[in-house]
Amino acid sequence: MDDTPIDPAPTTTAAEGTTGVSRRRLLTGGALTVGGALAGAGIGVAATGDSGGPTPDPGQARPKEAAYGAQKVPFHGRHQAGIATPAQAHGVFLGFELARTVDRAALGRMMRLLTDDAVRLTRGQAALADTEAELAALPARLTVTFGFGPGLFKAAGLDDQRPASLTPLPRFPIDRLQDRWSGGDLLIQICADDPLTVAHAQRMLTKDARTFARLRWAQRGFRRGRGVQNDGVTQHNLMGQLDGTANPPPGGDIFAKSVWTDSGPAWLRGGGTTLVLRRIRMELETWDAADTKAKEFTVGRRLGSGAPLTGTVEADAPDFEAKDKLGFPVISEFAHIRRAHVTDDRMRIFRRPYNYDDAPAADGRPDTGLLFASFQRDIGEQFLPIQRRLAASDLLNQWTTPIGSAVFAVPPGCAPGGWIGESLLG
Amino acid sequence: MDDTPIDPAPTTTAAEGTTGVSRRRLLTGGALTVGGALAGAGIGVAATGDSGGPTPDPGQARPKEAAYGAQKVPFHGRHQAGIATPAQAHGVFLGFELARTVDRAALGRMMRLLTDDAVRLTRGQAALADTEAELAALPARLTVTFGFGPGLFKAAGLDDQRPASLTPLPRFPIDRLQDRWSGGDLLIQICADDPLTVAHAQRMLTKDARTFARLRWAQRGFRRGRGVQNDGVTQHNLMGQLDGTANPPPGGDIFAKSVWTDSGPAWLRGGGTTLVLRRIRMELETWDAADTKAKEFTVGRRLGSGAPLTGTVEADAPDFEAKDKLGFPVISEFAHIRRAHVTDDRMRIFRRPYNYDDAPAADGRPDTGLLFASFQRDIGEQFLPIQRRLAASDLLNQWTTPIGSAVFAVPPGCAPGGWIGESLLG
Ligand code: HEM
Ligand code: HEM
Repeated sequence: MDDTPIDPAPTTTAAEGTTGVSRRRLLTGGALTVGGALAGAGIGVAATGDSGGPTPDPGQARPKEAAYGAQKVPFHGRHQAGIATPAQAHGVFLGFELARTVDRAALGRMMRLLTDDAVRLTRGQAALADTEAELAALPARLTVTFGFGPGLFKAAGLDDQRPASLTPLPRFPIDRLQDRWSGGDLLIQICADDPLTVAHAQRMLTKDARTFARLRWAQRGFRRGRGVQNDGVTQHNLMGQLDGTANPPPGGDIFAKSVWTDSGPAWLRGGGTTLVLRRIRMELETWDAADTKAKEFTVGRRLGSGAPLTGTVEADAPDFEAKDKLGFPVISEFAHIRRAHVTDDRMRIFRRPYNYDDAPAADGRPDTGLLFASFQRDIGEQFLPIQRRLAASDLLNQWTTPIGSAVFAVPPGCAPGGWIGESLLG
Repeated sequence: MDDTPIDPAPTTTAAEGTTGVSRRRLLTGGALTVGGALAGAGIGVAATGDSGGPTPDPGQARPKEAAYGAQKVPFHGRHQAGIATPAQAHGVFLGFELARTVDRAALGRMMRLLTDDAVRLTRGQAALADTEAELAALPARLTVTFGFGPGLFKAAGLDDQRPASLTPLPRFPIDRLQDRWSGGDLLIQICADDPLTVAHAQRMLTKDARTFARLRWAQRGFRRGRGVQNDGVTQHNLMGQLDGTANPPPGGDIFAKSVWTDSGPAWLRGGGTTLVLRRIRMELETWDAADTKAKEFTVGRRLGSGAPLTGTVEADAPDFEAKDKLGFPVISEFAHIRRAHVTDDRMRIFRRPYNYDDAPAADGRPDTGLLFASFQRDIGEQFLPIQRRLAASDLLNQWTTPIGSAVFAVPPGCAPGGWIGESLLG
């Protein structure tokens, strides 16, 4: 079941838990013990708040809202939003480094504050410290998703609660990792169909996080603009490939058993997951030099249709046994989809990548690639074996270079009144 | 008359001039003398090409296209597109510095090549050197607009053809200009409702420009995602203000007589204009500290509705004479809209700004502001007097800092077979 349905229009019902809570009470935690116990208990709540909007203003002509701006994704639920949520057009990943003085109690205050911001902003309401309230009015499917890096467990004195495989990935020979795109104790993933909404939410959340942490990196990415293609259609990445075909469909059975963590520390189980974020540069200059045949051979799928080389339409299952007239496999031994393929559904990963395209170099060379975001139950069991096979021999490696790497435990969602991370830090 | 209508659906008619022209013939100029004479002669052509798309592929399931992706803005016409065109959701401004060896003949070759790229890409067709043809298929109202900086005239040996006021702006006391955001001999403005389309067009055009020039700066900006608000509604900037209210409506009478150049060098007259691009940082940290009243006093309009302080709805004309009970002007002497206001319609400017929001500093301070793009007949007559008044005393200056500055002559559009800049360089 997909528990992050889209509310296509603003509603005016259901004032929720934290709405009346002052900033001071939030920080002291006074109002938040009630209901908090529900968090992590697997309660699926998908109520939406009212649409909020700017403070009243004499003679205010409220901006007319086309369909996409008013759409909301409920924040509360068994799982955090922004994972099974159909990927929005814009996303930013923020990696923070905790200040040295931050302990478990401070982390609790931080997550209460950030949860409250996220609840309000995703409803189209201003955050408590928001002085540009007008910018909060159009959530455009805004989601805010939090993740905890290895360092956060140490800071909290809870290293025994860290999932065993939540450690920086081993170094792969293909890696050219840069510190400035790697690591991080706290992740905030912000996604929406509107870039102004993302920018505003980013600013509000960064503002409240900075008391506790410094920003280590910010990685802004994009997919097709909403409405440019039909919803649900597989999109092209900047190499011109259809990217996302073989993903487990969100909300489906395979998704449920490969994404939601069901073993390891109790606080993460049931509603939580893990995220691997790899910043992977695309070497488009040399990719340009390859012809279509070589490009398709590399991945094992066609550029135009996304069909496997053994099929005719995107939905066809690749036939990894098929041989050509000379007896060679049609899908190469070193093709990306063969190397990345897993047959055990529990071992699959869910990719939710964004394209990045920063300012080119003076000589025109693009600085472009994929913010490769992978969600899975367990990094060691699922992501690592795939990544190892790809690092060992994937034709695509000739044109892709991992330059950033970070791992996070993604806590379960929470019910109204609760806060993200409560099952660990509360 | 607005001569850049939107073609809401792909058509399959009208193969145009350059379509069958090879890259080699383009560079040697062979095919391009015919028809070229039409350029700058004020011929409004708005034919659209066929929708193009990826090369045929066995069993290809063409991606389903929602409304926005297939929309096209005709490239050809009396004026370049991307000026009167309702501002698309995404935009990038690219500033190039010409290589020392580039002369008038080389500039002609460059502009032929870039024009050909722009014609194809805006039609949803692959550029000649495009090896990721799939990425060209959804133009999403793509426009490509070229501008010539002062240095280009010098390189061409045509300094006498430079509009007299096309020189770097004088230094204003409010300026904190950075070289990395200033100057430039060639501007390419790329706008579309889809960020992937912008990224792809940027790469194709940069690739072809680099033989002649190095990239000096790239400034990426955004507005609301298409469909987030209704088309034509005034949008908020990142300070939370409705920005664009008092702009001359594109296609209208005031627009025509304030934007299209009607004096100075003949090659620019009739179809051309000028562009001032200022990168203006917003000091959101201190802006946050101001209350709503102070913010509204600063601009002279309300934050929520955009109404002038003397009115009740956005469309109300400000009453600059109105006094409060104490006899003070309701709209301050130093309010932004009073300082920026001009009564002579021919002296107005047309603002087509984009928001920018780059990675924040480690301490969380945002790097955000406006890519302030202003089109006008003549920079000296129109832009400068306004900018001088604002620099002298505009309350907004407390929270805004110009950090980049560039000026360009924007050549007229061209007819099929012609190329941008032909009336100057041909
Ligand atoms: C820039 C880097 C990458 C690019 C451009 C890329 C592109 C693609 C493409 C075009 C496909 C085929 C269509 C699809 O099913 O989505 C694919 C499939 C896949 N990729 Fe990647 N990929 C990249 C990196 C990775 C990494 C780092 C991993 C995991 C470590 C990965 C895991 C997968 C998986 C699991 C599949 C599905 C395989 C199957 O079962 O058919 N990819 N990728
Ligand atoms: C970050 C910098 C700036 C911000 C945030 C800003 C914001 C605004 C706002 C909110 C308005 C009122 C609504 C509207 O008519 O659009 C306005 C009006 C205007 N601004 Fe600015 N502006 C900035 C810089 C400039 C600059 C540099 C110029 C020209 C040199 C300029 C020229 C104008 C003009 C001509 C108007 C219309 C005045 C009238 O006739 O009512 N602005 N601006």
